Amino acid sequence: MSQPDRPDEFSLIEQVFAPLSAEAPGAFGLTDDAAVFSPGEGMELVLTVDAIVEGVHFLSSDPADGIAQKLLRVNLSDLAAKGAIPRGYLLVTSWRPDTSLAWIESFAAGLCRDQQTFGISLWGGDTVSTPGPLTFSVTAIGEVPRGKLLRRSGARPGDDIYVSGTIGDGALGLAAAEGQLGGTLEDIQFLIDRYRCPQPRNALGPRLIGLASAALDVSDGLMADLTHMCETSRVGARIEGARIPLSPAASHAVDANSSWFGTALTGGDDYELLFAAAPENASAIAAAATESDVPVTRIGTIMSREEGVHAVDSHGRPLTFSRLGFTHF
Amino acid sequence: MSQPDRPDEFSLIEQVFAPLSAEAPGAFGLTDDAAVFSPGEGMELVLTVDAIVEGVHFLSSDPADGIAQKLLRVNLSDLAAKGAIPRGYLLVTSWRPDTSLAWIESFAAGLCRDQQTFGISLWGGDTVSTPGPLTFSVTAIGEVPRGKLLRRSGARPGDDIYVSGTIGDGALGLAAAEGQLGGTLEDIQFLIDRYRCPQPRNALGPRLIGLASAALDVSDGLMADLTHMCETSRVGARIEGARIPLSPAASHAVDANSSWFGTALTGGDDYELLFAAAPENASAIAAAATESDVPVTRIGTIMSREEGVHAVDSHGRPLTFSRLGFTHF
Repeated sequence: MSQPDRPDEFSLIEQVFAPLSAEAPGAFGLTDDAAVFSPGEGMELVLTVDAIVEGVHFLSSDPADGIAQKLLRVNLSDLAAKGAIPRGYLLVTSWRPDTSLAWIESFAAGLCRDQQTFGISLWGGDTVSTPGPLTFSVTAIGEVPRGKLLRRSGARPGDDIYVSGTIGDGALGLAAAEGQLGGTLEDIQFLIDRYRCPQPRNALGPRLIGLASAALDVSDGLMADLTHMCETSRVGARIEGARIPLSPAASHAVDANSSWFGTALTGGDDYELLFAAAPENASAIAAAATESDVPVTRIGTIMSREEGVHAVDSHGRPLTFSRLGFTHF
Repeated sequence: MSQPDRPDEFSLIEQVFAPLSAEAPGAFGLTDDAAVFSPGEGMELVLTVDAIVEGVHFLSSDPADGIAQKLLRVNLSDLAAKGAIPRGYLLVTSWRPDTSLAWIESFAAGLCRDQQTFGISLWGGDTVSTPGPLTFSVTAIGEVPRGKLLRRSGARPGDDIYVSGTIGDGALGLAAAEGQLGGTLEDIQFLIDRYRCPQPRNALGPRLIGLASAALDVSDGLMADLTHMCETSRVGARIEGARIPLSPAASHAVDANSSWFGTALTGGDDYELLFAAAPENASAIAAAATESDVPVTRIGTIMSREEGVHAVDSHGRPLTFSRLGFTHF
C-alpha cells in the first residue's frame, strides 16, 4: 500500500533531503544531476562506498535515525582508516511503497545530526522505489595529502600493532540485542548503543599519516581484519590477548563467561582503527591519541609471514577461536 | 538456495571484479577500503550516482551484461550532460543467494566491455547479499575544467534548444519489448536495443562547455526534462514538434499510429543530451556535433517564464500530451 502522505520523488528530495545539502555549494541544492568538488591544494580525493540491506545489516524494527547514522558512520570509519578528512557524501535510498514520510524524515534527521557531528554535507544521490527490502548506500568522499593515504599494505615485521578505543562492544552489543547476553541494564544498554551507533575515529585517522605503516578499520572482527592487513602486507602478527582493550561492560561479560572473549576478538562491528607503526613512533602515536581524544592501545607485534597471524595469552600460549570473524556478505 | 559454485565475497571481488580495476592505480586492485584520485591541473571533480532495482528498472529475464551496461551508461550520460570527462566508478552490487556465478560473470563482462568503450575503470565498491530484488548502483566520477560544469540553470530567453541523436527510441523500445508495438522485425529490434543499451553522449558533452547555457540528459522524457531545465533556469520553452529528430524505426511507428509521437516526447529513457545555447553559437555547436560524430538538432526556443513549456505542430498549434514524462521512482 502506497502511503498517501508521501510526496513524490522530486518533492521528497526538495523537502526532506535538499536541506542536508545547504552547506555544500557544489551540490547545487540537489537540483542538478551531479555534484562538483575540488580537493584542496596538495590534496587528493578518497572515495569509499558501503551499502546496507534491511534484514541483513539492520532490522526493520531498528530506529530509522540510527540506521542512517550507522550507514554514514561505517563509511566515515573507512575514511578515518585511510587518514582522510571527510568532506561529503552521496546517498542512494530505496523506499518501499509502505515506507512512511515520518520514517523517511527520521532517517534524514539522523543524517542531519551526524553531518553536524562530522562536518560533512550531502552532495547528491538517487532515490528509487523497491518492493523491499529497504536498501541504502553511501558514497563518502574525503581528502588526504597527495600520496599519503594510509594503506593496508605497509606493515613490516617488528612494527607495533595498535587499536583505538575498545574491542568487542559491537559484537557483544549484537548478542545483547538478540537477548543472548546477561548483565546489568546499564552494561546491556551501553553495548547495544555501541553496536547500533559506532564511533568512527575521524579525529585520530588523519593524525596517523606519517606514523602508521598500515591501517584499516575493524568491521569484520579484529582477528579477521588483522589477517586482511597481514595478507596485503605479506607479514604475520602476534596479538597479546591480555592487552586487548575492553570496555567495562565487555569486561563484565567476559568475567561472567570467558567465551565472550572469543566473540570480542572475532565478532566484528567495532569500527575501531587497527594499525601498525614502527616502535620509534610510539611517543608520537601517544601524542596523536591525546590530541584526538581517542585512546590507543598497543596489542601486539608484526611478525614475519611464516609465523602466521595468531593471538597468545599472558603465558604465551596460543588462543584459538572457533571462527576468524564475521562477514557481512 | 545458495549457489554451491559461487565463491565468497572476498573471492568474488578478487576473481571477478578486481580485474576491472587493473588500469586504475588508485583502486589498489580492490584490496583496500577506498580509492584515491587526483583531478588534473585546473580540473574539478564531478560525481553522480544512479541505482537500479530488479522489477522496477530492469526485468529478471534481461541479460546480465546488458543490465550492467545500462547501469553504467545512465551514469555516464549524467556526466556527459555536465560536460564532464568520465574517469572511473564505484559499484555496489547486492546478490541473492540464488544468483549464479555465471550471471555475475556475465554482469562483469558487460562492465568490462563498456569500460573499454568509454575509457573508465572500476575503482571500488561494496558487495552485499539481499533476499532480493537485485539492486545495483554506480557512483560515476568525472572531471571538468574548474567552474565550467554545464548546469540546468543557465538557459535564457532567445536561446536555441537542441537535442542529440534521436528522441523516443527508448520509450518505443520499451513498448516493443512489452509486445505493444507492431512493425518490421528490424525496427522492433533496433528500438529494443536502444531501450536496453542507451548511447551516452560522452563525446559531445565536454565539447559543449562554453557553448551551452544549460544542459541535462533526457531520462524522464523530453517534455518532462525540458520542464526541469526551464524550472531551474526560470524560463519557458517552445518546442517545434516537426523538428523532433526521430529514428527511421520511430518514424515508421509514428506513421502507423500518430499517438506514438506523444510517447516519443514524454516516454523517457532516451539518454540524449538536451541543451540550450545562444543563437550565435549555432555554427560552433554544429562543429562540435561533427567532431564528436553525434548528430544534433535544433528543436525549439527558450521563451520567457510566462509562456510556459509547450510544443507546437508545424502550423503553430499546441500539441498536448496525456502525461509529461515517465518517472522511474
